[in-house]
Amino acid sequence: MKYRDIQLDSQGRLRHFLTIEGLKQQTLIDILDSAENFSTVGTRNVKKVPLLRGKTIANLFFEASTRTRTTFELAAKRLSADVLNLNINTSSTTKGESLLDMLRNLEAMHCDMFVVRHHSSGAAHFFAQHVAPHISIINGGDGSHAHPTQGMLDMFTIRRHKPDFTALRVAIVGDILHSRVARSQIHALNTLGVPEVRAIGPRTLIPAQAESLGVHVYHDMQQGLRDVDVVIMLRLQRERMQGALLPSENEYYRTYGLSPEKLALAKPDAIVMHPGPINRGVEIDSSVADGPQSVILEQVTNGIAVRMAIMAMVLGRPNEEQEAG
Amino acid sequence: MKYRDIQLDSQGRLRHFLTIEGLKQQTLIDILDSAENFSTVGTRNVKKVPLLRGKTIANLFFEASTRTRTTFELAAKRLSADVLNLNINTSSTTKGESLLDMLRNLEAMHCDMFVVRHHSSGAAHFFAQHVAPHISIINGGDGSHAHPTQGMLDMFTIRRHKPDFTALRVAIVGDILHSRVARSQIHALNTLGVPEVRAIGPRTLIPAQAESLGVHVYHDMQQGLRDVDVVIMLRLQRERMQGALLPSENEYYRTYGLSPEKLALAKPDAIVMHPGPINRGVEIDSSVADGPQSVILEQVTNGIAVRMAIMAMVLGRPNEEQEAG
Amino acid sequence: MKYRDIQLDSQGRLRHFLTIEGLKQQTLIDILDSAENFSTVGTRNVKKVPLLRGKTIANLFFEASTRTRTTFELAAKRLSADVLNLNINTSSTTKGESLLDMLRNLEAMHCDMFVVRHHSSGAAHFFAQHVAPHISIINGGDGSHAHPTQGMLDMFTIRRHKPDFTALRVAIVGDILHSRVARSQIHALNTLGVPEVRAIGPRTLIPAQAESLGVHVYHDMQQGLRDVDVVIMLRLQRERMQGALLPSENEYYRTYGLSPEKLALAKPDAIVMHPGPINRGVEIDSSVADGPQSVILEQVTNGIAVRMAIMAMVLGRPNEEQEAG
Repeated sequence: MKYRDIQLDSQGRLRHFLTIEGLKQQTLIDILDSAENFSTVGTRNVKKVPLLRGKTIANLFFEASTRTRTTFELAAKRLSADVLNLNINTSSTTKGESLLDMLRNLEAMHCDMFVVRHHSSGAAHFFAQHVAPHISIINGGDGSHAHPTQGMLDMFTIRRHKPDFTALRVAIVGDILHSRVARSQIHALNTLGVPEVRAIGPRTLIPAQAESLGVHVYHDMQQGLRDVDVVIMLRLQRERMQGALLPSENEYYRTYGLSPEKLALAKPDAIVMHPGPINRGVEIDSSVADGPQSVILEQVTNGIAVRMAIMAMVLGRPNEEQEAG
Repeated sequence: MKYRDIQLDSQGRLRHFLTIEGLKQQTLIDILDSAENFSTVGTRNVKKVPLLRGKTIANLFFEASTRTRTTFELAAKRLSADVLNLNINTSSTTKGESLLDMLRNLEAMHCDMFVVRHHSSGAAHFFAQHVAPHISIINGGDGSHAHPTQGMLDMFTIRRHKPDFTALRVAIVGDILHSRVARSQIHALNTLGVPEVRAIGPRTLIPAQAESLGVHVYHDMQQGLRDVDVVIMLRLQRERMQGALLPSENEYYRTYGLSPEKLALAKPDAIVMHPGPINRGVEIDSSVADGPQSVILEQVTNGIAVRMAIMAMVLGRPNEEQEAG
Repeated sequence: MKYRDIQLDSQGRLRHFLTIEGLKQQTLIDILDSAENFSTVGTRNVKKVPLLRGKTIANLFFEASTRTRTTFELAAKRLSADVLNLNINTSSTTKGESLLDMLRNLEAMHCDMFVVRHHSSGAAHFFAQHVAPHISIINGGDGSHAHPTQGMLDMFTIRRHKPDFTALRVAIVGDILHSRVARSQIHALNTLGVPEVRAIGPRTLIPAQAESLGVHVYHDMQQGLRDVDVVIMLRLQRERMQGALLPSENEYYRTYGLSPEKLALAKPDAIVMHPGPINRGVEIDSSVADGPQSVILEQVTNGIAVRMAIMAMVLGRPNEEQEAG
């Protein structure tokens, strides 16, 4: 509810895109439908539409991520926007400038949108709370809180293969506890009416209140994968190993890695997803990642169309609204 | 005089923009008037004019500054130029290439303008002296010498609030000795006919020949602020503390920090300026920086329009002139 | 032969540009002729042609090179393409992603061309072997193997001064053994019909099988320079000094540095070339590098036109071919 307030303008339209939690089903469907239209741009001869010409989009990445930054940059350029890449480690925060002062400065430069990636949960909301009314914030991943564009591109990818969300069983496997991707996926799947979302992982990596998020918890992967339509593998952050949350990589692979044998427990036409970059042989076997059920690279392709859709939707609202908002 | 020669072409038009010193009053007024026109671009729906389409502008930053580089990049993009960002620390100078060889190479690539930021005073002049006739240099800050685009955006900001320069008392407070910003401001204020420019700071941070620059020196801030129309605070470089030029930050704030009480000594409608990034609680109190008299963020906004004006003026001269010059 | 297969499409047209070895003379001449047309773009008022509008070109630089990256970036922008700069040191390979996974991801983002610079010989071929059919690879330098765009810009520069390749004597001086530039030049010179290519350098820096490459080996520079039309100096990698392959810089300069006295042994109208960046006083005297016979900066200028020609040729093939290829 708090999130809805800040994300939507007075007419209920997306003004920021911070989290999937609290958004209406129709909003998610609008994004998916719009992304369908944009998905053809990437395969045209001229991969560009003039929709955001003369708009300025700044990528504020407090956490290095070439891959995510690249997809946002491509999405913005294919909408004909001007893009600023600001890697904030090497920037004026080293001169002791506060985050808020930096925000005010970028605002004053008449940027239209900030894509914010930050290691702290809540960073994108913080920006949205303080930003001037004419600027939109897209959350490019904040701590372990949310990664909503990733969540939406995953929904887009699922819908392309399994058009009826209300008939699906989806399993998310791995480090649910620390995963902003999982959190956004769970909200999206619930909102879109998926009747059964399963969270599979060791006790140390499943949040205590997981059931209240609307998922069924499985610690046994064989049980959890049975008859699912979609298997979403999460990236294992290797640094978790140090914190004694996890045994060795080998043991993790044996227990929660997606091998062909385990995948065989899912439905025969189940699709396999992963937000990337993948750790081959840790959370997923190479033969599965590169196999016929994998849609991992489609996810990357779809990420551009979905980000174009969200950027266009947020910036394309009639102007008076932005000023009133 | 030396500077005028190199900055102007044979017809007295700006060919480079290296320093405000020696420019005619009319040249400064032309820049301010042109910036007025460009200032509307940033608030349009399509923030772009096609003026420099097909021109190549290279940002040569030998000193990291995300903020300044960003304003130049935005100004260039809103003029539709192509922008190259070259961070020279990580570049071929590491291969032992000389500055001059690097310059020759960039020239050979048919760049039209270099924006040069360098830690050594005189670097922009060095470039201007050696660059090919068809290329323009903009000084983006050189050592403790000059930061003329900052000086001009400050004049623009002042004029918006106090249109008659000949009726103003302006105080510049802080580390005048090491400040390229202060030096450019003083030249601009004198050229524009401001009758009283005051330099306020401790003895260790005011240049010995300050009076000859056309300023009145005050070591007592209370005295110096009395009845001024404009208060310009300078950023305190914390590294000065080490050199024993300064006491502690606390003591500096007590003596030369802009508190509400000290600001009350200025005229009631005085404006407060700062080139940023600000050290809150060191040279300026937060309540003043964010208060109703502060125009600090307007300075940032104006910086883009002023840089567009200068870039357009320098590159927009008729072509034959550039070749003859 | 292996290289020809992978570089050309089924109709013999350039699909990648990986190496000059194995290309037909006519292909090289087509590139040079096309570059002649593009060479006027850099001196126009609007330095842009709309040829590759809506195409996405990614610079994948695994080896830092501001200079080479800049020329590719400028070439792409002047063709109106969108450019992504990916410095792969600071990227997701640090997350343990394999090269091939990174390639697959960039493919999935619908890039049209990758310019690859890598410290390992064969990297560009590796990319070309594995890349999707609709994507073209340009080799921007791989290990000590090839630097074919440099080779072609050198040919372009030679032809501008000495239009008849079949009447030339060309000397390449320096570290032939480790030079990808030399290798590409030798292939190009041989293919274009230059009757006499000389390789001059110490025994430790000339490959054992040099004669089989189609060059005449000289260890005595005075002999080697006699009556040549073109002198190409190579950059001396200072790190070679450590490996005991070379004596001191002073001794190297005395023996193989291009002094005015040594240059006097070449034909009076011989041109002097160097791929840059130059080590003044090591492999070349400053008076020669800056002298009337030097065309070193013309090489830089020509590099943009030649890269535009190659990019346009490779991406400009009819679409059905790309899909069929």
